[in-house]
Amino acid sequence: MSLASQEFLSSDVAEGVFQLPGRLALHHGGSLEQPSLGWRIAGQPDAPVILALGGISAHRCVFDAAQPRMGWWHEVVGPGLALDTNRVRVLGIDYLGGSGESTGPAAGGVFPSLSSYDQADALVQLLEHLNIQRLQAIVGASYGAMVALAIGERYAARVGQLVVISGADRAHPMATAWRSVQRHIVRFGMASGRATEGLELARALAMATYRSPDEFAARFDQPARQVEGRFVFAVEEYLFARGRDYASRYRAESFLCLSESIDLHAVDATRVAIPSIVIAIREDQLVPIADMRALAVRLPRARLIELSSPHGHDAFLKEAAALQSIFQSLYGVIER
Amino acid sequence: MSLASQEFLSSDVAEGVFQLPGRLALHHGGSLEQPSLGWRIAGQPDAPVILALGGISAHRCVFDAAQPRMGWWHEVVGPGLALDTNRVRVLGIDYLGGSGESTGPAAGGVFPSLSSYDQADALVQLLEHLNIQRLQAIVGASYGAMVALAIGERYAARVGQLVVISGADRAHPMATAWRSVQRHIVRFGMASGRATEGLELARALAMATYRSPDEFAARFDQPARQVEGRFVFAVEEYLFARGRDYASRYRAESFLCLSESIDLHAVDATRVAIPSIVIAIREDQLVPIADMRALAVRLPRARLIELSSPHGHDAFLKEAAALQSIFQSLYGVIER
Repeated sequence: MSLASQEFLSSDVAEGVFQLPGRLALHHGGSLEQPSLGWRIAGQPDAPVILALGGISAHRCVFDAAQPRMGWWHEVVGPGLALDTNRVRVLGIDYLGGSGESTGPAAGGVFPSLSSYDQADALVQLLEHLNIQRLQAIVGASYGAMVALAIGERYAARVGQLVVISGADRAHPMATAWRSVQRHIVRFGMASGRATEGLELARALAMATYRSPDEFAARFDQPARQVEGRFVFAVEEYLFARGRDYASRYRAESFLCLSESIDLHAVDATRVAIPSIVIAIREDQLVPIADMRALAVRLPRARLIELSSPHGHDAFLKEAAALQSIFQSLYGVIER
Repeated sequence: MSLASQEFLSSDVAEGVFQLPGRLALHHGGSLEQPSLGWRIAGQPDAPVILALGGISAHRCVFDAAQPRMGWWHEVVGPGLALDTNRVRVLGIDYLGGSGESTGPAAGGVFPSLSSYDQADALVQLLEHLNIQRLQAIVGASYGAMVALAIGERYAARVGQLVVISGADRAHPMATAWRSVQRHIVRFGMASGRATEGLELARALAMATYRSPDEFAARFDQPARQVEGRFVFAVEEYLFARGRDYASRYRAESFLCLSESIDLHAVDATRVAIPSIVIAIREDQLVPIADMRALAVRLPRARLIELSSPHGHDAFLKEAAALQSIFQSLYGVIER
């Protein structure tokens, strides 16, 4: 679906596709010529704006009060929820390089390597376009935490507060290992003319890294069953069902681009001069707790909150109650 | 290379391929008709025999004093080493279903699902053939720990002691998740006519699960470098070098068979009536410490030793000093 820029759909929802007026020079070389950025803003009219950024499969629809399942953060963000859209407006975007309305790789096409700084640069132009001088806060999780830190380093005056969840100043080499294998699988699928199957497989692997061993032990402690002469394990059925669902909705080329962008991410946390809350999940396999603690030490103005969750890296999608109390500090009045 | 049964190569090394006299009925159904089992025994002549069983890429050559790199456990087993072959003889085998001299799947062939009980049943026939009435001990690590437990449950009278390293009474669902993805990758490669590449990828993924995040953080904390227009990460280069090496030496079909055998493994630890030492590595991602503790509780006569190692699941290959002190208890005289 294509949306006209700034077409207001109802009194409290607006969305559009913003075309940057010029060339966007990229951190790792190359540029994008007048790239587009899909955006959506929803919540209490005239309330302060919070930018919500999720993982690489997130998109501009953070929540949708009318169709809750359409929002990638629907368990946490909405009227009366942990991030209460009766009190704030929430801005979401489609990432550059992704599968949404923003500029990204075409099927089979070549696309330059993207940095979290590139997302930050494009986002700040969008804020200008939307006439948002200053964000009340950015709440970023996973890749979104990385982009939040990139904005914090480059554009501190634009943001009142950062909430950095399950994402650090750089990727851990073990997480890079797992994602490197995922990218090889996807490229292998593309080279074999079976891109969708490759993407299914890569996503199945990714799902195993998003959750904690304890969650899998509790859910999948069942004997294998025989299907068409082969043993199939309960956890295998789950992973590949998730993989198939993902591959039906996302492009292999976008996955490659954003997965690489995570591993290329490297910001200087000591230069992020914004009050920050760092939320770390002890069971996160992908972003070890030690890396989040080190991030909180490097950030000049950070408070660290450690949580436990069987959902591991995906805790930000699930732990609404814990997040609700933390998000209370985001509702204060700021100058705008 | 094919070796005549029981051909003695030197005074203290013997190896051969034993053909079981009859049909081997398999735990999960089906049977193997007079399967072969490759074996090798080396060490102090007439000394007590210790059976050493490793992971699914182990083989009958546990150590070779003349060519150390030929033995899969060469850092730990040998004359004067942690498991001192001046004091014991060490028996090794090629697993059924593997890539060695034992019966396994042919290229492109169908092969039945193998249980750790099947390995145990075949092994006990080999002991009979070699006239080894009772093993001084079995030292089993990873898949070898699973086979050791299967022997312990079914053939307690054959063994004086078990040393169970980094393998439990069943696989953890998270480890099954990672291995399921590996098997899908291999089958995907086979279906695409690119079995070797699939095996490289699967092994690259497996390597990431064998080591600990701390080891990778220490070794691979380097910026990506550009190779042929694409960013390549240090950890990625390492994993795929290991993957290529593996794929040049092992068959995809064997990998599928033994990987599945790990996930099908399920023994009743409460029925293993042999004195056992359980060695658990706190950093093991594949066999969580909680599972090893639970195993030690279920085993009727077990002592648990917990170690820390950056090598994670692969610690048994590397931590010679820690193992040396534990292995002291294996040299006692037993009736034979």
